[in-house]
Amino acid sequence: MVSAADVTVDDFLGGRVRLIQPRKGYRAGIDPVLLQASVDARAGQRVLELGCGAGAAIVCLNARIPGLTLTGVEREPLYADLARRNCAALEVVEADLADLPLCIRQRQFDHVIANPPYWSRSASVPGQDSAKEAAFDERTPLRLWVEVAARRLAPKGLMHFIHRAERLPDLIRALPHDMGSIEVLPIAARTGRAPHRIILRARKSGRGDFRLHPALILHEGDSHTDGDRYTAPVRAALREGAALEF
Amino acid sequence: MVSAADVTVDDFLGGRVRLIQPRKGYRAGIDPVLLQASVDARAGQRVLELGCGAGAAIVCLNARIPGLTLTGVEREPLYADLARRNCAALEVVEADLADLPLCIRQRQFDHVIANPPYWSRSASVPGQDSAKEAAFDERTPLRLWVEVAARRLAPKGLMHFIHRAERLPDLIRALPHDMGSIEVLPIAARTGRAPHRIILRARKSGRGDFRLHPALILHEGDSHTDGDRYTAPVRAALREGAALEF
Repeated sequence: MVSAADVTVDDFLGGRVRLIQPRKGYRAGIDPVLLQASVDARAGQRVLELGCGAGAAIVCLNARIPGLTLTGVEREPLYADLARRNCAALEVVEADLADLPLCIRQRQFDHVIANPPYWSRSASVPGQDSAKEAAFDERTPLRLWVEVAARRLAPKGLMHFIHRAERLPDLIRALPHDMGSIEVLPIAARTGRAPHRIILRARKSGRGDFRLHPALILHEGDSHTDGDRYTAPVRAALREGAALEF
Repeated sequence: MVSAADVTVDDFLGGRVRLIQPRKGYRAGIDPVLLQASVDARAGQRVLELGCGAGAAIVCLNARIPGLTLTGVEREPLYADLARRNCAALEVVEADLADLPLCIRQRQFDHVIANPPYWSRSASVPGQDSAKEAAFDERTPLRLWVEVAARRLAPKGLMHFIHRAERLPDLIRALPHDMGSIEVLPIAARTGRAPHRIILRARKSGRGDFRLHPALILHEGDSHTDGDRYTAPVRAALREGAALEF
C-alpha cells in the first residue's frame, strides 16, 4: 500500500476517469489512452491488459465501453494495488507475464492490449525506485509480451500494442504465424515529422493483407511554435473518450 | 530480339533518359524511378539490380549519378536484350536470381536494388504473354529476392526495395539477421491516404534503430478532383533526376 502523500489523483477522458497514480515512478501519459481508444470492443467481450500498471488504459476503456469483462496483469505490487483501487470492475492479477497463473492461462480473451516498457535496461542507468524502473525498463523481452498476448487470444481475437516506432520490426518478427490481418497506425507529433509511436493491431487467424494507415498527427501546426493544441481526433480521444478509428 | 513495331521509346527524368520498352508487357511507371532516386550512391560504387527488366531504375541511376559500375540481372531474354540496348554502360546478366552465375556470386556490391513483381500468381489469371506475366507475377518468392540481395552486399552495403505497402511485414521477416539500420519510406497518393507503396532500405551489419519516415506524398491536393500534379520532391525526382532524400 502507498500513503496518500505518495500519490496523485489525475483526470483522464476529460474527468470521466480519475486515476490514483504514484507521485514518483511511472505516470501515464497519452499513450495508454490512445491505445485503449483504438480498441473496437463491444459489451460482453473479455479484455486482458498485460502490464496494466495503475490501470490508465484499461480503466479508460471501462469508461468508454460499458459492459466489458476486464482483467489486468501487473507484476509490481504497488501498481497492482493502485489498479484495484482505481477500478472496482477490474480484476487485477499480480503476476509476471513470463509465469502467468493457471487462472489466466486457462482463459481466452477477445482483446489483449499492452503498452510495454519503452526502454531496454542496457540503455538506462539503474535507479533506486525498482517499481519505476520495472515500468520503464524492458526486463521482459518484447518478444515474450507478443507471444503471451497471442496465446491468450480467442479465435479471431485482436491484439493491440503501442510502442516506440523503432520497435516495429521487432513487433512484426515476434508475431506468431497464426497472427494475421496486421495493421499499423503510425503516430507523429506533427505533419511531416517522423512517427515516434505506432499502434499495432493483429488478429488471431486473421488472413487480411497488412495495412499501413496514414499517420495520426498529435498536434496542430507544423512546428513547436504553433503551440501544443491537439488535433481533433486526438483531442476527442483524450478529452471526450472517443474511439480512434482506423 | 523484338522488332521496332513491338517497342516504344519513352522519356524518363525529363528526357535525360530514353528507354526502349515493349509496347505490351511490363512498362515502367514511376516506381523504378523513385527507387533509384532513393539510392545515395557515389562515383566508383558498384550497384546491382535484381530483375532489372528493360532497365528503367538502373539506367536512370546511371544518368543521375556518374561513375557507378552497374550490373543488372534479368531472367527474361526480351527484357535483358532491351536493357543492353538501353544503356551501353550497363552489364546485363541473363539469369534467374535463384540460380545466379558464378560471375555474380563471386562479387560484392555497395548497393543492391530491386522492384520485384507485385502480384502473386495465385491472385492473377494466367495470360499468353509469358514475359509480361513474369514481370508482374511473383514466381520467385519475395523472401528469396531479399536473401539474394543481402548475400550480394559488401560489408556496410545497402539494400533498397520498392514494393506494395502490404508486403512490409514479409520484407521485414525476410531480412537476414545481419541486415540492420532498417528504414521505411511510405509512399501515399495524397495527404491523409494510406500509403500504397514503401521503399525499404537496410544496411549489411547496420546497427542503427529502425526508422519509419514521414510518408512521401505523390500528388498535391486532398482528392482526385485536385488534379494529378506531383508534389515538389516527386516532380524533382521524376522530371529533373533529383535525389529523394530520407
